[in-house]
Amino acid sequence: MEDQTQREQASPEVQARIRDSFERQGLMRLLGAQLAHIALGRVHIVLPSRPEVTQQHGYFHAGATSAIADTAGGYAGFTLFPEDTAVLTVEYKINLLAPAEGDHIEAVGTVLKSGRTLTVCRLEVFGVQGSRRTLVATGQQTLICVDARPEQ
Amino acid sequence: MEDQTQREQASPEVQARIRDSFERQGLMRLLGAQLAHIALGRVHIVLPSRPEVTQQHGYFHAGATSAIADTAGGYAGFTLFPEDTAVLTVEYKINLLAPAEGDHIEAVGTVLKSGRTLTVCRLEVFGVQGSRRTLVATGQQTLICVDARPEQ
Amino acid sequence: MEDQTQREQASPEVQARIRDSFERQGLMRLLGAQLAHIALGRVHIVLPSRPEVTQQHGYFHAGATSAIADTAGGYAGFTLFPEDTAVLTVEYKINLLAPAEGDHIEAVGTVLKSGRTLTVCRLEVFGVQGSRRTLVATGQQTLICVDARPEQ
Amino acid sequence: MEDQTQREQASPEVQARIRDSFERQGLMRLLGAQLAHIALGRVHIVLPSRPEVTQQHGYFHAGATSAIADTAGGYAGFTLFPEDTAVLTVEYKINLLAPAEGDHIEAVGTVLKSGRTLTVCRLEVFGVQGSRRTLVATGQQTLICVDARPEQ
Repeated sequence: MEDQTQREQASPEVQARIRDSFERQGLMRLLGAQLAHIALGRVHIVLPSRPEVTQQHGYFHAGATSAIADTAGGYAGFTLFPEDTAVLTVEYKINLLAPAEGDHIEAVGTVLKSGRTLTVCRLEVFGVQGSRRTLVATGQQTLICVDARPEQ
Repeated sequence: MEDQTQREQASPEVQARIRDSFERQGLMRLLGAQLAHIALGRVHIVLPSRPEVTQQHGYFHAGATSAIADTAGGYAGFTLFPEDTAVLTVEYKINLLAPAEGDHIEAVGTVLKSGRTLTVCRLEVFGVQGSRRTLVATGQQTLICVDARPEQ
Repeated sequence: MEDQTQREQASPEVQARIRDSFERQGLMRLLGAQLAHIALGRVHIVLPSRPEVTQQHGYFHAGATSAIADTAGGYAGFTLFPEDTAVLTVEYKINLLAPAEGDHIEAVGTVLKSGRTLTVCRLEVFGVQGSRRTLVATGQQTLICVDARPEQ
Repeated sequence: MEDQTQREQASPEVQARIRDSFERQGLMRLLGAQLAHIALGRVHIVLPSRPEVTQQHGYFHAGATSAIADTAGGYAGFTLFPEDTAVLTVEYKINLLAPAEGDHIEAVGTVLKSGRTLTVCRLEVFGVQGSRRTLVATGQQTLICVDARPEQ
């Protein structure tokens, strides 16, 4: 498993491009979310538990769950985009399967179909408590690849 | 319009129940979101612009947009629920129509169909700059009404 | 209402383009669906009740409901597309709100946002029995406009 | 693979319950769809190619693709329901990834999370041409389990 993960790791250039973009996301910093893994076509984002990201019953807020799921999917698609492009979320749909709790939650965005214009990702979020890992949300997302060359 | 809004305002008990619940949401406080209007079957939530809620291009992050949309829909459904119940989001789908920008964004959750177990809401988010109001996201959400009586 | 409908009627060219395309849809003929109205950005499709379009409890099958909803939305978007283009459904989401029954069901596709590449529509399906009209399904759809010029 | 499929095959009672329900679906008969496999938590439905199930460009119509996907998911959930219950689709979302073509298309509905009231399924549809199998649609579905005991 470790080996496979290593093999599929995105190139240093792609990783740098994504880390750089991630750091410009004020919301990810505000939430305390962290990029945990960047593979080609798959990105993991982790969000540690703290009162600031909860809903009224003390679980992770669906908005926080969705925010890191959407971001993981967006960057998963972005790993496969050509240079001088940017990624925008067209839409996503997410089912909240179980109360999101644990030491942290981990979102995994995985490209299902990568096209020239549109990319479709699967979104999964797990609640992680020690070695226990529970699927708390699952979704599907459509991304669009747009030109990001500076205007001349 | 003002009159209609007055007429449809939720009762003081319902408003108090929702304000109380909203204040327990750590994420809404962290984002800086505010309950702007509570009508029967319709709730508005406002999120002022600031760098902490942006994505990498400086617009409101889709995660922030979705978080207030999901919350507005959840409380819109909740205004119609019986006492001693709680609301959970089953799932939602959202299209990001345009870059979300402005002084603030405003999410409007509106009940389309209220059932005993399930409720379906429309979600809309507007970017507001002075008197200009642009639809930046539109979605659809399924809620479930669950028993919240204290166990005996 | 009648006047407004007249004013917003699509041009004869657009109507002909859509009727021609609709007639080439084997599935619409198989189901017995009919184009009922073609306005700019809004198309209505009607499906009369018969045993061949039911599910196991005798209501209209969600598959039939969805098929005419998807088609109504697709053509609603198509009314606003430039010549020499075609429409493809990227994705849609639909909530089945109530058992679909009546003399016929009527799907209404309405453009919410029309872009150069992507268009987002609202989908609604009503069960119609005499003068009673019940919303039985509501959805949201993303379309893409693709080049349909013959290759040279 | 064959062995695993055998092991996970649903019981004869469950299979009979689903085949009986499927046969009462007028739409599945009209389309020419067939139940291909019934495992616990997973159902396959096949639809052979013919002009009656096409859209305007000659591919399988998204409405036909969705109809068998929705039905496969519904029965996948139903394999896990208790006796004297029925299944209703609450909502589903589907992305059309590629033109649906081939000798036949095959929908696979798989339960992701089975709850007492709600069940969430993954929907996949493949275009099959000889030994080539292409993912043409992927979706996610919410089902509800309702009481179906005869009233007394």
